[in-house]
Amino acid sequence: MLMQNQVSPLLTLTSDFGTQDAYVAAMKGTILRINPSVQMVDITHEIAPQDIMEAAFVLRDVVPYFPAGTTHLVVVDPGVGTERRPVAVLSGGHRFVGPDNGIFSLLLADGEPDMAVVLDRKSCWLTENPNNTFHGRDIFAPVAAHLASGLSLTEAGTLIDSLTRLRWAQPLIDQEGMQGWVVHIDRFGNSISNISSSCFNEAARGRCFKCYVGNTILNALSTTFADVSSGEPLIFFGNSGFLEIAVSSGNASELLGIRKGAPVNVVFS
Amino acid sequence: MLMQNQVSPLLTLTSDFGTQDAYVAAMKGTILRINPSVQMVDITHEIAPQDIMEAAFVLRDVVPYFPAGTTHLVVVDPGVGTERRPVAVLSGGHRFVGPDNGIFSLLLADGEPDMAVVLDRKSCWLTENPNNTFHGRDIFAPVAAHLASGLSLTEAGTLIDSLTRLRWAQPLIDQEGMQGWVVHIDRFGNSISNISSSCFNEAARGRCFKCYVGNTILNALSTTFADVSSGEPLIFFGNSGFLEIAVSSGNASELLGIRKGAPVNVVFS
Amino acid sequence: MLMQNQVSPLLTLTSDFGTQDAYVAAMKGTILRINPSVQMVDITHEIAPQDIMEAAFVLRDVVPYFPAGTTHLVVVDPGVGTERRPVAVLSGGHRFVGPDNGIFSLLLADGEPDMAVVLDRKSCWLTENPNNTFHGRDIFAPVAAHLASGLSLTEAGTLIDSLTRLRWAQPLIDQEGMQGWVVHIDRFGNSISNISSSCFNEAARGRCFKCYVGNTILNALSTTFADVSSGEPLIFFGNSGFLEIAVSSGNASELLGIRKGAPVNVVFS
Repeated sequence: MLMQNQVSPLLTLTSDFGTQDAYVAAMKGTILRINPSVQMVDITHEIAPQDIMEAAFVLRDVVPYFPAGTTHLVVVDPGVGTERRPVAVLSGGHRFVGPDNGIFSLLLADGEPDMAVVLDRKSCWLTENPNNTFHGRDIFAPVAAHLASGLSLTEAGTLIDSLTRLRWAQPLIDQEGMQGWVVHIDRFGNSISNISSSCFNEAARGRCFKCYVGNTILNALSTTFADVSSGEPLIFFGNSGFLEIAVSSGNASELLGIRKGAPVNVVFS
Repeated sequence: MLMQNQVSPLLTLTSDFGTQDAYVAAMKGTILRINPSVQMVDITHEIAPQDIMEAAFVLRDVVPYFPAGTTHLVVVDPGVGTERRPVAVLSGGHRFVGPDNGIFSLLLADGEPDMAVVLDRKSCWLTENPNNTFHGRDIFAPVAAHLASGLSLTEAGTLIDSLTRLRWAQPLIDQEGMQGWVVHIDRFGNSISNISSSCFNEAARGRCFKCYVGNTILNALSTTFADVSSGEPLIFFGNSGFLEIAVSSGNASELLGIRKGAPVNVVFS
Repeated sequence: MLMQNQVSPLLTLTSDFGTQDAYVAAMKGTILRINPSVQMVDITHEIAPQDIMEAAFVLRDVVPYFPAGTTHLVVVDPGVGTERRPVAVLSGGHRFVGPDNGIFSLLLADGEPDMAVVLDRKSCWLTENPNNTFHGRDIFAPVAAHLASGLSLTEAGTLIDSLTRLRWAQPLIDQEGMQGWVVHIDRFGNSISNISSSCFNEAARGRCFKCYVGNTILNALSTTFADVSSGEPLIFFGNSGFLEIAVSSGNASELLGIRKGAPVNVVFS
């Protein structure tokens, strides 16, 4: 017990609440009232409003870098106040708390969770009559605080067999090529597609290719920005393992006219 | 003493400094030099520049969710360098530190503070000659760090009888209806008015109503976004207890043409 | 050893990653996997993309307010993936980790660092094959975590004699006057120049002056915003010790037409 106490339980927060309002702070206060020794780390609160898919991509990229045992509070919840279920999930040694709206689809891409429960134990909530527009504060944050403090999933809810899965758009592939699309544009204008390196290599079978995206055509993979001159476009498999379109020392989204959802066409020859 | 040390003192920060400059970090460094074990939580630093009223609304919404004993550092300080007093306030088991410019008016709406002092003990400051444009770093942050570490208010300053109160705009009410206005627009475009549920119910006396706001007219209270179809407007008493105007799955501010300060007219029949 | 453990090691983070992506969180998770008791404080992640000079100015302003012994992780790294060296630096009791691209030039303005090493001990990295576009996560964050945990610089790398210095633009000075320029515009529109008070006083030798900046001319130094009427421009030596141009209760950048890089001309008489 002494050893356990030496390290604070770790809890990350991800939401679409932004940082201009008091919503995130209300969740943090609620967590600290339950356990003042929780160490909180913000993943991001700037998920585009109600964009479940963006949250799913961010979680898949970042969760592996946190220690096993971390609790992740995820509140992107367009269905708040409807019948969508509040859930807690155990997967790969990490705990997740949030709405069952497909937000965990990419984290669980490789299989079923180790355990999932619907959060029906109102004694773990902030109030038995939660506000219909802010389950983040009234249900998810307090449950996450209790789980981070050692409560087991089955003390917070009732076991369920499966979670809502969204069938995330996969690239279309045929003999001649493949078509994916841009799922995220980062602060630097780097445009990240849904084409993974394994998917690309399997389709390419070593053939040459042309990649059509925005107003440019590229025919070689780079490994770093310095592979091309300043101002030139490049494509590479980024730190998330997916094909990215960038401009060396520039903003690819602006310079190449790429917006979220833009098609990325690869033609093999 | 061992027990006290097990939980770090909690200190929240609210300001209009934004996060692009080093101002907030200079306050945090100053706090940690005084007490490296303080746990800091940002409420928000994106209060509109010098908007005392917005800060007052945010504090009223969020402070109740933090544990008693928390110290709150609040720096929205258009009068920095003038004769406005630096103060510390004890109210409801929470300590507050900031300029006496009305920023605490809503927190104290129900009465006088339990204690208030003017911060005239220069030994608690970072320097006896504080920079005239940054009392946040040179006076408020160090005093907040000392209070969070156990210093009493009367060791930081001299007792005062009353604080500056701003007479915040209340809705106008007559026999036929009431007029309030929009005090805050959140990240989602939800438009929060200054009409509280108790104020509304008292004026309505159970009568039917029409609510005119932006380019729409509404005649029913909703309880959740799902009460209306996607894209439809709704009004409800939000998690802050005030009448909010929203659009299901949409941005009410943009779609209904509502800006901060817009009138909200309710006519009873 | 017991005493050392009572206070968590302190680690600040500065970058141009913004907060909308998962990059900062990936660094924080990596740090916490190495040492879960590290206390992290964000300086800012909103350095303009790849703006080494802005990062250098922010660091110079904020580092002195942090306790000696703090480790500072700084990732503004346009040359990631090229031959620019990853380094750790000891100066004034603070440790710094980041790319050797001139980012530490202003911190070291007064002389050589106490110690500097090139980070060539791959055992301290997250992986021996770091991603070519994200050394922040794969090299700098893990090394910073190890240094914050007590590793010495020479255990993380090999001693080097000198760091890359950028010759930051100094004001031009002659008998009649001086010309500096605006290096940073803060959230309030205050425009901060590269003219220090010592540099100004040395050139002025007590003479009267006119300061031409944007669309205004000023001939007196103020000490606080309240020295002029609301809406009037003023100049003063700000909390960073450099000449600032401001508008009382207004946005100097907008009202006076000042952008980053704008000239600040001072003529003595």
